[in-house]
Amino acid sequence: MKYTLSVIVENHSGVLSKISGLFSRRSFNIDSLAVGVTSNPAFSRITIVADGDEHVVEQLEKQLNKLIPVIKVKRLVEGEYVSRELALVKVQSTPRRRGELMQIADLMSAKIVDITPSTFTFEIADTNERLQTLFDLLKPYGIKEIVRTGTVAIEKGQGEAYHSGFND
Amino acid sequence: MKYTLSVIVENHSGVLSKISGLFSRRSFNIDSLAVGVTSNPAFSRITIVADGDEHVVEQLEKQLNKLIPVIKVKRLVEGEYVSRELALVKVQSTPRRRGELMQIADLMSAKIVDITPSTFTFEIADTNERLQTLFDLLKPYGIKEIVRTGTVAIEKGQGEAYHSGFND
Repeated sequence: MKYTLSVIVENHSGVLSKISGLFSRRSFNIDSLAVGVTSNPAFSRITIVADGDEHVVEQLEKQLNKLIPVIKVKRLVEGEYVSRELALVKVQSTPRRRGELMQIADLMSAKIVDITPSTFTFEIADTNERLQTLFDLLKPYGIKEIVRTGTVAIEKGQGEAYHSGFND
Repeated sequence: MKYTLSVIVENHSGVLSKISGLFSRRSFNIDSLAVGVTSNPAFSRITIVADGDEHVVEQLEKQLNKLIPVIKVKRLVEGEYVSRELALVKVQSTPRRRGELMQIADLMSAKIVDITPSTFTFEIADTNERLQTLFDLLKPYGIKEIVRTGTVAIEKGQGEAYHSGFND
């Protein structure tokens, strides 16, 4: 079972080490992890996507809540959030292939952010499935490099995950 | 001095803990950190943006290179890379304000990914400066939540950071 945790933590240098140490000691496997500042610079949000059964996830939530720099842990429920990931993809190009690559950008709502005589670099922000579709479309041209952010997620609807002042 | 490191590591549960532990022990302050899989599932790429003088960054590169699960460390040079970050922003809305919010989305090339009678959720993928501009534009409406991925970066031009097979 894939699950997504949104964790608000104090923003200092030891926090990430504590959290990743917890995953590591318990051999929890993380699919992706993204750390971004919140609008209050004293706090960061860590979004973790990982695999595990219900029991494991519950244990993990409890353990995370016990860590001192953790302010709040929220498990996001499938279907009730919007998730997105950003990728930058550099692909081989030739003058002949440019038209096809421009079509792919258009089809996938991807932007072309760098061009050289022999390469195109695409930017895409979308669901994981759509990122994979872009990679599949670009593969035959020769992908030189892919850089991905890891997934972030926000709850749909009017709710906010954290009512404290640090989202203002 | 802000610097950006692109680090290729083996993809297993202890790696992030080792790397964040290194930053923590030396009290290096990380501005953002993003972990994404590469096209070879055996490897992940960690993009770190941090602050420090030349000497500190050199030391850090050396230390990172010594860690067993680290395959390659590359410092990206200002002006020679494209950097992007993704954010999801939920803001308060009313029927009267929708037009203004749609204009902001249009102006900033942001997408509206969720709508309720009283909220809009924006998605933006852009430079850190442009993200900040969007937040500034949305602030007067009442920001309920911001979720950010952390910055990723890719070298401009034809080069690829890593010539090993794991980019194919």
